[in-house]
Amino acid sequence: MSVTDEYLRNNAEYAQSFKGPLPLPPSRQVAVVACMDARLNVYGVLGVAEGEAHVIRNAGGVVTDDAIRSLAISQHLLGTREIILIHHTDCGMLTFTDADFKQRLEDGTGLRPTWSAEAFPDLEEDVRQSVRRIERSPFVPHTESVRGFVFDVATGRLREVPAEV
Amino acid sequence: MSVTDEYLRNNAEYAQSFKGPLPLPPSRQVAVVACMDARLNVYGVLGVAEGEAHVIRNAGGVVTDDAIRSLAISQHLLGTREIILIHHTDCGMLTFTDADFKQRLEDGTGLRPTWSAEAFPDLEEDVRQSVRRIERSPFVPHTESVRGFVFDVATGRLREVPAEV
Repeated sequence: MSVTDEYLRNNAEYAQSFKGPLPLPPSRQVAVVACMDARLNVYGVLGVAEGEAHVIRNAGGVVTDDAIRSLAISQHLLGTREIILIHHTDCGMLTFTDADFKQRLEDGTGLRPTWSAEAFPDLEEDVRQSVRRIERSPFVPHTESVRGFVFDVATGRLREVPAEV
Repeated sequence: MSVTDEYLRNNAEYAQSFKGPLPLPPSRQVAVVACMDARLNVYGVLGVAEGEAHVIRNAGGVVTDDAIRSLAISQHLLGTREIILIHHTDCGMLTFTDADFKQRLEDGTGLRPTWSAEAFPDLEEDVRQSVRRIERSPFVPHTESVRGFVFDVATGRLREVPAEV
């Protein structure tokens, strides 16, 4: 049995006690942008319940154009106002460079991707870079509360990254 | 007190019973691509525990270049093999068109985004489109198990979308 099939069995159990439907707009008007890392369970880490917050995730928790697209839809169409950014310790994105990864893909496939891998050498600096990308985007109107954090995969704790050094 | 501050208080509680660190590579070798929707708690819906699976999310759960970037890093560098795609009923992406959203942003800011909003008129067809984008990407090598689902926000159940009509 595949892992996917196991997860589908879990879903049958989940549905038995499920209460729905909740409204479409997030009730707490928050959007979270976090790394895809398997150890970062956003619902647990923040105590978010179903229906409260948008959750946007990608490799690194980086503010890419796609994250801006999601935040623009979140704020313009679905009423969110606060943004929480979460990177984490022991992140895979610290272990390679964009150039290495592109070369690896080119070596394996003959094709070099047109996108950046968005690897970063400094965790806190990338959190600040992500905050800046949001603050300077014309498509994200509400930037009064954009706060960046590092999740410690050893302790489960969030540590806030000061806005600028 | 902001919602962000409330969530930080929740985090202090979460950390008290936290057991870490777990290894970086996802233990179940799965990557999930899901919509950012607030009602779709991927951990609950699939019964995923910390450390098991990458979770990639954006507006619509669409397979954009950024999702491909994340999946490429997930498979090439961190060993995942199965992919689970999740769209859902009552999705905001069904309620507008790319042209409308771009016009709205241009009217409000004077700037037209260079990216597509990735709205879609048909839920199942967009799941299939997303599966196809993964299967045909040169940068996602393991496509033996790429399965697409619709999450029902009323019942909590996942329904599998047949591969092609």
